[in-house]
Amino acid sequence: MDLKAPIKVYMKKKLIGVKPEDTVKRAGEIMAEFDIGSLVVVDDEGNVVGFLTKGDIIKRLVIPGLPNTTPVREIMTKDLVTVPSTATLGEVLDVLSKKGIKHVLIEEGGKIVGIFSISDLLEASRRKLETAIATE
Amino acid sequence: MDLKAPIKVYMKKKLIGVKPEDTVKRAGEIMAEFDIGSLVVVDDEGNVVGFLTKGDIIKRLVIPGLPNTTPVREIMTKDLVTVPSTATLGEVLDVLSKKGIKHVLIEEGGKIVGIFSISDLLEASRRKLETAIATE
Repeated sequence: MDLKAPIKVYMKKKLIGVKPEDTVKRAGEIMAEFDIGSLVVVDDEGNVVGFLTKGDIIKRLVIPGLPNTTPVREIMTKDLVTVPSTATLGEVLDVLSKKGIKHVLIEEGGKIVGIFSISDLLEASRRKLETAIATE
Repeated sequence: MDLKAPIKVYMKKKLIGVKPEDTVKRAGEIMAEFDIGSLVVVDDEGNVVGFLTKGDIIKRLVIPGLPNTTPVREIMTKDLVTVPSTATLGEVLDVLSKKGIKHVLIEEGGKIVGIFSISDLLEASRRKLETAIATE
């Protein structure tokens, strides 16, 4: 794990999304299917208009007891946290830690080009571990 | 981050728990309050009888549309994944990666003595980052 490497090396380029009018049930199904903790919310023009994490679902649907037919739009986070694609892994970890979040969107030229989550560190650590074992 | 260090260095010793008869709403409130993704489920004799993650809540409560008054016992994971406290961080990351899980219980002398989650890596990376900056 190289804290000085650009986040582009570690981010996932494939953004998995839902529409604002999709139900939270549908969003949960997609999270479960792809084993991910967050989704981008994309409107019909392809703009990222929100972000939805498992934590959002717990806080804004499960705790208040809303039905799973609630549209994603009603519980998504509209304030998007982004970092530029040129930021280093260390800088991004610092942003996550300071903001108390586990996922961040990566922006380049005004567009969202990827997502990085703490879980991606696991993959990076594992690769390092395998390399370490291979060179022992 | 030292992949050869024992997991004891990185685990959290404070286990945050709920009772099997607590509601999922209560479990969600505790997760939100402490900003954690999992809880241990502890019976009246102090035995860890289950484990509950945000993912369990999404999969087994939100998707099927159960009410938030459902007892934790009905949706918790009963198959506990544990690693010995002498396991190295690298070994633990490997277990998490292979099993596709993000949290694991740490066992010592037949007792659960801690918990490690991928998020704890963030704290470890941050400490390393701060050390790196301090020594630059």
